[in-house]
Amino acid sequence: MKQIKRVVIVGGTHGNELTGIFLVKKFERSPELIVRSNFESLTLLGNPKAYAIGRRYVETDLNRCFQRQILENRNLSSYEAIRAQEIYKIIGCKGSHPADLIIDLHSTTANMGLTIIPASKHPFNLQLAAYLTSTNPDVKVYRWQETNQDSPFLRSICEFGCAIEVGPIAPGVLDATLFQQTEALIHAILDYVEAYNKKIKPEVKDSLTIYQTIQVVDYPRNESGEIQAMIHPRLQFRDYQELHPGEPMFLTFDGQGILYEGESIVYPAFINEAAYYEKGIAMCLTQEQREIV
Amino acid sequence: MKQIKRVVIVGGTHGNELTGIFLVKKFERSPELIVRSNFESLTLLGNPKAYAIGRRYVETDLNRCFQRQILENRNLSSYEAIRAQEIYKIIGCKGSHPADLIIDLHSTTANMGLTIIPASKHPFNLQLAAYLTSTNPDVKVYRWQETNQDSPFLRSICEFGCAIEVGPIAPGVLDATLFQQTEALIHAILDYVEAYNKKIKPEVKDSLTIYQTIQVVDYPRNESGEIQAMIHPRLQFRDYQELHPGEPMFLTFDGQGILYEGESIVYPAFINEAAYYEKGIAMCLTQEQREIV
Repeated sequence: MKQIKRVVIVGGTHGNELTGIFLVKKFERSPELIVRSNFESLTLLGNPKAYAIGRRYVETDLNRCFQRQILENRNLSSYEAIRAQEIYKIIGCKGSHPADLIIDLHSTTANMGLTIIPASKHPFNLQLAAYLTSTNPDVKVYRWQETNQDSPFLRSICEFGCAIEVGPIAPGVLDATLFQQTEALIHAILDYVEAYNKKIKPEVKDSLTIYQTIQVVDYPRNESGEIQAMIHPRLQFRDYQELHPGEPMFLTFDGQGILYEGESIVYPAFINEAAYYEKGIAMCLTQEQREIV
Repeated sequence: MKQIKRVVIVGGTHGNELTGIFLVKKFERSPELIVRSNFESLTLLGNPKAYAIGRRYVETDLNRCFQRQILENRNLSSYEAIRAQEIYKIIGCKGSHPADLIIDLHSTTANMGLTIIPASKHPFNLQLAAYLTSTNPDVKVYRWQETNQDSPFLRSICEFGCAIEVGPIAPGVLDATLFQQTEALIHAILDYVEAYNKKIKPEVKDSLTIYQTIQVVDYPRNESGEIQAMIHPRLQFRDYQELHPGEPMFLTFDGQGILYEGESIVYPAFINEAAYYEKGIAMCLTQEQREIV
């Protein structure tokens, strides 16, 4: 069993997601908070230049820059591509301070509550997720679409770990409740790692529900790419709730409903995330998957 | 009695407040919606360059550029100062298409519901506000601090009119419910103007509650200006609700409450507005004022 020697807590991978940024600042002021007996905890501000200008990113989304083809390309010049390489040189597996586990802190305008996005389906990550859902039943576990490709996410540079995605919260604001809930999740992860290193396995249920993305849905758009409809009021803020075939997804500006035409019940997530308008994502449709851990 | 010959509906004075922008686009596609029998309705996209880049502004807040000293200064070079002058040349009192009434559409991350901010306390504006609150009891009427200075707001370039401020909504997203409610308010204003021009005065109550700003409160900050506390969970989203002396306003990152130390009950508004962090505004404290209309 691999020992976890170093945990890295990353805030501000997106420069306008203040929850993670102010948690990292707090831990930098009071490092004793993240000290545990049998591993080192480090903090990292992911995108300081984007934070300084109050934006998600300067040139491109840092959390889409961690594919090998970007990390290994010396000809890239965008601030975020270079920053991804810098981060990889510090906490990547051959870096100066290689992380054994990464916690990457995010927030969303979607009503995703407290969501864990495991870095991979490694049994350790699923057991950690099961632990977090057992200590707080409100925690949801989400996965992006499975692909065989190189993952672009920061969390992917380390086998162990997860992103924490909390919402709904606007970019550029702090919400004290979400701040405290995120901090509690971080402490739960650190406690879990400490126990794991001592070969203590907390009692958790032996199965876990994962909301597995099966399809990404864009807004209806016209030929020039302009949005033609909004999230339907009956779907807004209903992340992780059942969407049945024939139920409304969108509402045009003229008040016409657009229905979900799939054939099975799905559980949308990332509904109306501000940063995803430009990515062509109105929501991610997921299915519940039961995983044995 | 002055006839109103031209109403101008402005969206996107802030480029990331999509509600107003998409309403303007809707009215540009379907101009018949804002046609009334006895005046002309125009639309204007306030800050198209900021909208194109998905930000509140390019260089400076356009809605703080309508003081006379900016409008009359030919030496200014910021995009927004020049844009304010352009707008003034179109819809200002000596412009090519002078507005008799302006409706300026805004949104906020604060829980301000449907708020009307009259351009002035001109009896017409107060009567219009009274009409809007009588047709929809959820409508609140808000005023910034009274000053003798030149107002920097777009709505100030016209004697008649108001801003509509809706929330809570994150910048960069559309919320179908708020979109429809804002549209309904615009139609109510247009209907009111049509009746007014016909010398028909709708039945409304003869008094009106205005939430009048008496004080602006910043976040607690350290010497370098960095925020030291968040809006307290017990105050978050409680815009227009009573705040009593001794009740919590802020929560430090270490979990210490900071209390409201004023001597009288106030009604905070613009609580936790994203764009006001940089302006040094955590909330605006208001008092209820009863106005006879």
